[in-house]
Amino acid sequence: MSEQSGERAVILVSGGLDSATTLALARERGHVCHALSFDYGQRHRVELRAARRVTESLGAQEHRIIHLDLRAIGGSALTDDAIAVPKAAAGVSVGEGIPVTYVPARNTLFLSYALAWSEVLAARHIFIGVNAVDYSGYPDCRPAFIEAFQAMARLATKAGVEGRGVTIHTPLIHLSKAEIIREGTRLGVDYGLTLSCYDPDPEGRACGHCDSCRLRAAGFAAAGVTDPTVYGVEP
Amino acid sequence: MSEQSGERAVILVSGGLDSATTLALARERGHVCHALSFDYGQRHRVELRAARRVTESLGAQEHRIIHLDLRAIGGSALTDDAIAVPKAAAGVSVGEGIPVTYVPARNTLFLSYALAWSEVLAARHIFIGVNAVDYSGYPDCRPAFIEAFQAMARLATKAGVEGRGVTIHTPLIHLSKAEIIREGTRLGVDYGLTLSCYDPDPEGRACGHCDSCRLRAAGFAAAGVTDPTVYGVEP
Repeated sequence: MSEQSGERAVILVSGGLDSATTLALARERGHVCHALSFDYGQRHRVELRAARRVTESLGAQEHRIIHLDLRAIGGSALTDDAIAVPKAAAGVSVGEGIPVTYVPARNTLFLSYALAWSEVLAARHIFIGVNAVDYSGYPDCRPAFIEAFQAMARLATKAGVEGRGVTIHTPLIHLSKAEIIREGTRLGVDYGLTLSCYDPDPEGRACGHCDSCRLRAAGFAAAGVTDPTVYGVEP
Repeated sequence: MSEQSGERAVILVSGGLDSATTLALARERGHVCHALSFDYGQRHRVELRAARRVTESLGAQEHRIIHLDLRAIGGSALTDDAIAVPKAAAGVSVGEGIPVTYVPARNTLFLSYALAWSEVLAARHIFIGVNAVDYSGYPDCRPAFIEAFQAMARLATKAGVEGRGVTIHTPLIHLSKAEIIREGTRLGVDYGLTLSCYDPDPEGRACGHCDSCRLRAAGFAAAGVTDPTVYGVEP
């Protein structure tokens, strides 16, 4: 890991595998990393404890958690108790159609907070671990969305007006889950600290059955890396 | 005021003069109006009481208030106690440079929440009372920003992907304060219910000295409309 001698960056960190890898990649590029997580009434609030472990482990400069009241808006299995998290048997892909676990405008909201904080920090870099390979069903994980957000962001802020607009970095966007895991393993990410499950038990152990668990397990298998995930129930 | 037989719209309502006029214009166009306000730790929280009065008075279908923790981000006189609200003596314009009352990425955040809610409501219209005449110093009040936000929004959501993307309406963007007041007066807006002041007293009475108060008072004078504003101290 290189010295934190570079420019400041805001890194969106969920506690999952992808954002942990993204943070490690930003650190490798020498950024001083300001990690940002969101408490949005998700069922997997234990994921925030994972986010804390990940940011400490990977040497973030600081870690802030912002409370978002997405329950007031509703519309997703992840924040709305009336919608069940699917335990589909058919394959690990969540790429067909738009899944029920989609949260309305989530990445737009997350990036907007990152933009606000970057302006206060005078940071010109935002990193987000979106992925267009496995999450092609999520509109806000696609390159076209990220490009449009960046164009908007450069018109939205003092820094943008003054020619110091932000760049949105998406280092994982075209990687497979196995490629992401190999990158993180190269950088020393301890994936045992991360949590990907949509429906963990109260101790933070993964269910092993949801789309996210299945995608993760298949990624470790394809990468040829030992899976450190602790499951509440054997999958 | 026409019947609420038209399409649903999300209207951003602050409790101020501009957003009250925007709500009245959306109602005139026949929209079923879902009003959205934000409690963002602003000094003028009494403005939310004004927002409630305004939405009831103008027949909004519902009014939701979302809590935003902008204090965690800081950087503005409106949310950061360490920065004083200016009481400049020189003119009513806030259009020179970027004023200290600017909140980082505020309209980006507000519009992002409106976008999320519009998706849940299946609403295709968002109204925001931004103005590029008096607030040219705010990057996120300019037409170019609004256009870029709309372009991003149409890539961000299920509805956009399916060809039912939102339109961001800014009916006040090129109007002077006097023109806004004449429009609202034509539509029966009771401006006595609204509050524009950046620094009201605890009873919600305007200070009469801040940029926003001065701009508002000059608008009523220029429009030839009696100013119903109640001041805590005579200006």
